[in-house]
Amino acid sequence: VSPLPSDPEALLERARAGDGAALARLLSYVDRGGATGMDVARLAYRSDAPYSVGLTGAPGAGKSTLTDGLIGAVRGGWPEGAAIGQVAVLAVDPTSPFSGGAILGDRVRMNQHALDPTVFIRSMATHGHLGGLSLAAPDAIRLFGAAGWDVVIVETVGVGQMEVDIASAADTTVVVVTPGWGDSMQASKAGLLEVADVFVINKADRPGVREARRDLEQMLDLARPGSWRPQIVETTATAAEGVAELWRAVARHRDHLVSSGQLPVRRTDRLAQELRRVLLARTEVTVDGLVSGEEFTTAVKAMAAGELDPYEAAEGLLAG
Amino acid sequence: VSPLPSDPEALLERARAGDGAALARLLSYVDRGGATGMDVARLAYRSDAPYSVGLTGAPGAGKSTLTDGLIGAVRGGWPEGAAIGQVAVLAVDPTSPFSGGAILGDRVRMNQHALDPTVFIRSMATHGHLGGLSLAAPDAIRLFGAAGWDVVIVETVGVGQMEVDIASAADTTVVVVTPGWGDSMQASKAGLLEVADVFVINKADRPGVREARRDLEQMLDLARPGSWRPQIVETTATAAEGVAELWRAVARHRDHLVSSGQLPVRRTDRLAQELRRVLLARTEVTVDGLVSGEEFTTAVKAMAAGELDPYEAAEGLLAG
Repeated sequence: VSPLPSDPEALLERARAGDGAALARLLSYVDRGGATGMDVARLAYRSDAPYSVGLTGAPGAGKSTLTDGLIGAVRGGWPEGAAIGQVAVLAVDPTSPFSGGAILGDRVRMNQHALDPTVFIRSMATHGHLGGLSLAAPDAIRLFGAAGWDVVIVETVGVGQMEVDIASAADTTVVVVTPGWGDSMQASKAGLLEVADVFVINKADRPGVREARRDLEQMLDLARPGSWRPQIVETTATAAEGVAELWRAVARHRDHLVSSGQLPVRRTDRLAQELRRVLLARTEVTVDGLVSGEEFTTAVKAMAAGELDPYEAAEGLLAG
Repeated sequence: VSPLPSDPEALLERARAGDGAALARLLSYVDRGGATGMDVARLAYRSDAPYSVGLTGAPGAGKSTLTDGLIGAVRGGWPEGAAIGQVAVLAVDPTSPFSGGAILGDRVRMNQHALDPTVFIRSMATHGHLGGLSLAAPDAIRLFGAAGWDVVIVETVGVGQMEVDIASAADTTVVVVTPGWGDSMQASKAGLLEVADVFVINKADRPGVREARRDLEQMLDLARPGSWRPQIVETTATAAEGVAELWRAVARHRDHLVSSGQLPVRRTDRLAQELRRVLLARTEVTVDGLVSGEEFTTAVKAMAAGELDPYEAAEGLLAG
């Protein structure tokens, strides 16, 4: 094996030819952000996006086991017959400061795919990227697409706003709940309902499945009417039960997006959101520059002395 | 009763004289943000900050009952004897889009103070304010100070990053846990440890108190050494047990801040954070201006056509 080049274009060529180490290196660049990370992202955006599936839900809902099962189903191809060459999993944990932290422990269970060169599993938990994970994740998804991967599963650890944002920036968003979820997740319910294209009731071997389903159906009945009503799939991921049905539900949602012409509309909306995030990240750099300056320190001292309020101070600093 | 003036200075004068309706009107201005909200905040920053106590912890930990009890203790004055004239409660719920939503239900239990003109309870859940609750909350705290209130208790609903940020932007931050909390809040532990000045184990009539205390002590043993080790207080808020001890622990922390000279240092640090937030909020307005412009739409179309990546597009828009 020849040593890895450091040039993004050369690396991408190697990644396209199936070199996992080259792909991993490119993902590290995206993780870390900076000038090289941006160069990689720019390259990635020249290619089409892969089909992305977001998976979100409360910690402990069994998402990683479900993802594990889903990989096998995806490798079997689209239900109507089209083959899927390669599938990537991006496991996103905004609460962990280190890439490959807590979440990688769960990934050990995915070892059944460890030797399969058509499956690529990657944890992301970086804050190095300008704009954080909400920018690093879409960049990484595009990178998989540029490297020729067909499907990317994005799995997030919790149900915080950032996690929901990341998982819902996918073509199909799967929300995972468990029997009895309603009580513990009252606050997140509306937000999850809004982003769900498919609902999964995992741990369906436990009591309370009927109530969970009724709860979801009632929520869907009350939701604003649209052209798509999320399907509710019951799974027992630990026994690989229902996973094939989940994959069929994802495929049905994809068919709907394609036939209704909504896929390009959704993707364009997402690009607009990404552009807005890049703009915000850029202006944050400007603010950080101001904060580290001497005038900022002077302004804060004047505020502490009661001579200046923060709004006046900000005006002064921005007027420079 | 004469009708309320709309001028902030006149309203503040009335609020200082004990007019609760005038104070409520001023808080609404701060809630809603905008030019008037900013005028009110600017007025508020001319006065000294009140002593603020932040209360955070998982939903269901009994924070509102604890706050209820704490009001009574605070009204009894500082333990060393100094009287406290008035106490305000700011109940902050970033997950609720409406002011006075879910959280107000809990507040019904506080009715024992409803007729006490020296107690003021207010829910905040607005997103109207430029910069959101993380700016509106400090503005509201300063407003209470400007109106002559001595102590403000800021209670947040959950343990999301924003809630922890808001509760920790207080002079003394109280973190509320319950027996068995360790299992359910693994992810938030480190963040809570970092901001806690006082720990409360509420629902101390339930099994597992000893384990919860040992868990906290171990965490504190492992934490970086500092001049203050958070005290751990056991309470059963529903029976008003331990609440007086909690108030003494808060007072002890305040004494420490004053005698060590850390109080002005902490407050200056907070002012710096507030100034940074105002700067970010201002630049966000700039970005929103760009996003609503025609050039943005054109850029997104070019991105959808694969002719432009978001980084290039952002550069172009900012150079605009």
